Amino acid sequence: MRWLTGNVEELSKEIRQEQAQLNENNELIEAQVREIIEQVREKKDIALFEYTKQFDGIELDSLEVPSEIINQAFEQIEPDVLEALEKAKENIVSYHEKQKELGFVDFPKEGIIRGQKIEPIEKVAVYVPGGTAAYPSSVLMNVLPAKIAGVSEVVMLTPPPKNGKFIPAILVAALLSGVDKIYQIGGAQGIAAVAYGTETVPKVDKIVGPGNAYVATAKKQVFGQVGIDMIAGPSEIGVIADETANPHFVAADLLSQAEHDTLSRSILVTNSKKLAQEVENEINNQLKQLSRESIARASIENQGLIIVSETFDEIFDLMNEVAPEHLEIALDNSLDYLGKVKNAGSVFLGHYTTEPIGDYFAGSNHVLPTSGTARFSSALGVHDFVKRIQYVHYTKDALKQDRDYIRTLAYQEQLDGHAKSVEIREEDN
Amino acid sequence: MRWLTGNVEELSKEIRQEQAQLNENNELIEAQVREIIEQVREKKDIALFEYTKQFDGIELDSLEVPSEIINQAFEQIEPDVLEALEKAKENIVSYHEKQKELGFVDFPKEGIIRGQKIEPIEKVAVYVPGGTAAYPSSVLMNVLPAKIAGVSEVVMLTPPPKNGKFIPAILVAALLSGVDKIYQIGGAQGIAAVAYGTETVPKVDKIVGPGNAYVATAKKQVFGQVGIDMIAGPSEIGVIADETANPHFVAADLLSQAEHDTLSRSILVTNSKKLAQEVENEINNQLKQLSRESIARASIENQGLIIVSETFDEIFDLMNEVAPEHLEIALDNSLDYLGKVKNAGSVFLGHYTTEPIGDYFAGSNHVLPTSGTARFSSALGVHDFVKRIQYVHYTKDALKQDRDYIRTLAYQEQLDGHAKSVEIREEDN
Repeated sequence: MRWLTGNVEELSKEIRQEQAQLNENNELIEAQVREIIEQVREKKDIALFEYTKQFDGIELDSLEVPSEIINQAFEQIEPDVLEALEKAKENIVSYHEKQKELGFVDFPKEGIIRGQKIEPIEKVAVYVPGGTAAYPSSVLMNVLPAKIAGVSEVVMLTPPPKNGKFIPAILVAALLSGVDKIYQIGGAQGIAAVAYGTETVPKVDKIVGPGNAYVATAKKQVFGQVGIDMIAGPSEIGVIADETANPHFVAADLLSQAEHDTLSRSILVTNSKKLAQEVENEINNQLKQLSRESIARASIENQGLIIVSETFDEIFDLMNEVAPEHLEIALDNSLDYLGKVKNAGSVFLGHYTTEPIGDYFAGSNHVLPTSGTARFSSALGVHDFVKRIQYVHYTKDALKQDRDYIRTLAYQEQLDGHAKSVEIREEDN
Repeated sequence: MRWLTGNVEELSKEIRQEQAQLNENNELIEAQVREIIEQVREKKDIALFEYTKQFDGIELDSLEVPSEIINQAFEQIEPDVLEALEKAKENIVSYHEKQKELGFVDFPKEGIIRGQKIEPIEKVAVYVPGGTAAYPSSVLMNVLPAKIAGVSEVVMLTPPPKNGKFIPAILVAALLSGVDKIYQIGGAQGIAAVAYGTETVPKVDKIVGPGNAYVATAKKQVFGQVGIDMIAGPSEIGVIADETANPHFVAADLLSQAEHDTLSRSILVTNSKKLAQEVENEINNQLKQLSRESIARASIENQGLIIVSETFDEIFDLMNEVAPEHLEIALDNSLDYLGKVKNAGSVFLGHYTTEPIGDYFAGSNHVLPTSGTARFSSALGVHDFVKRIQYVHYTKDALKQDRDYIRTLAYQEQLDGHAKSVEIREEDN
């Protein structure tokens, strides 16, 4: 792991610069994706069949996954996995129910009503990556908040499996969480299909879910035509620890992030050089026990970071600069420090709250802002699947009372048509 | 105005296709903007001075607007404009205060705490267009929600005025709403400056505010490095009206939108052919009285739309497809129909609630989703300036109770490092 020491300002600068690189656009991928989107808009279903053959090496019979296959998955899934998914669903639902917004109505003066009402987005597509990174937990995390928000149609997109066999847990998670249809289309072509619609695939209003660079670039390009959740980058964890932390626990948690991807980043910030050294030693021990050792090792070696701060308070300043996707606070009395957290996707408090609890089970969402984007964005939630529609009602008398202010501002902005729409309501009866 | 009749499905399709075109990318502008962003990242302040000379024709002494100039604006502004801005501010503040979120905390089982806390974004930039489209009301609408959310630093970007003289109301609105610094930099170069930071201009976490195609494209390109509000297109109004509507009022309101821009769109949906005809006649009468007649006329002729539906219920189905930025419901008992509105930025209820009330005074926001994006996005509000940070706390015993579910899902996803981070907490004491 790379060690950094120094003052907060210097370290912050360095971290920000590295994050900026992570968020760079790739012009080659952009051009390829632009072409794919154009082809899908033009040739629709035919383009989808062609790209699936070209990119996935599969000749599809149908774009939609047939319902027999989905139903079979319930027979194939192992009972303990089914039970764990059901329990996880319960927790995700009960957590996200608390995110529901009510809107408001306000009566500031006689004759004036104003407010905000909450309406669900109508149609949503959830992208689910294929291959080794096929995560049933992510299906629950993306679909359930949409359903709780009241989205009436949720379609799922996922690349067709190479061997023709879907992982049963993926299809079961889709059904458990209320997905209406599943299309076996991946990549930029999948995103283009739901952004513009084809003969078979419906045009949706918003696309959510993680994906590779092609998926992420396609989402960015269709943004505006449809809504998108966020541009997800490599996963990352930040651990704040002092001498009260258990180096075995901290090492295991840093590795649980590192095993995701060689680009995943694990960052320890501590005021204890002793702890830092113990964690590093323990990482080297535990690495050998992982089945994904080579991925985790590459991640730790290239992306891993140990920052030893000069003071305890600086730990939080630094971590707020990192703005990690996942943040563990491995301190005694961890709740006392929650107020210091300004930027993070999800916070795991105390020595026993290992980050995988949140990945799978606590009920909080695991779709989180990465690469420092927690400075301005948040975990996926019910709020991402609703619109806040404003409304205003004025009576004739109320308008009369406010007319001069409105006219003054309209004329100031040289929009006399705006002023006249007020004036005409006095002349005309 | 163009007239459309037909069934809902056909009309919807046509409207969607037209909106899709409005949201198209422009590859030429994209390439130019990419170059500008690169130059600003590389040469920083120097690039800003150079581009301002090249694009605005002005050699700046300083990038920041000096505080003397801002203070002078208070002496130059007309008293009635100042008073109207102050009253508008009061209403905007009282409306937006109601949008504040509290977060939540939940204790689902002994030993488990989970919740969501709300933290403001730290630094925000507000873009304010220059020229004839310099709207002090927009300054209030963009800045006040950020301040209510608790944003600690709000900087404003605006192109330097051609004649060297800022409109006093713009500077006064900035000060009234709590802007911390004003930079006289416009266009893509302004967006690049706040996205990456220069020697003078701070890097911010989120950029909001409308702008021309260069500004919008730049915002789209820096999205990911920083948050952005939305990609705003031409302004639009939809009016739902039946025979109870006053054609003079409806015509005036359609024109108040049309005067913004030749690309602005005014759409009337009615079940009364008689009303439609009266409104069209009245538009022709009122057009001649507008100082921005030529803009409004071009907008009405090229973008104006009258849709006569076959039934009353179809009016709402159609308007939900349009998903207008502004929606007027010019019906008796208009509040009874608010439940039917599924897609709209802001709704104006009843014959006397003309849309400019919302532009200037009611307190609801006038930064709204355009070109059908109200299907998935909302008016700017306090929620756009906060992050929802999740948190979870588990005790050792609570973890023991849930361990098997977490392990099962981790092994199912072949992430044994995730499972081990749970297991190690039992072994190790």
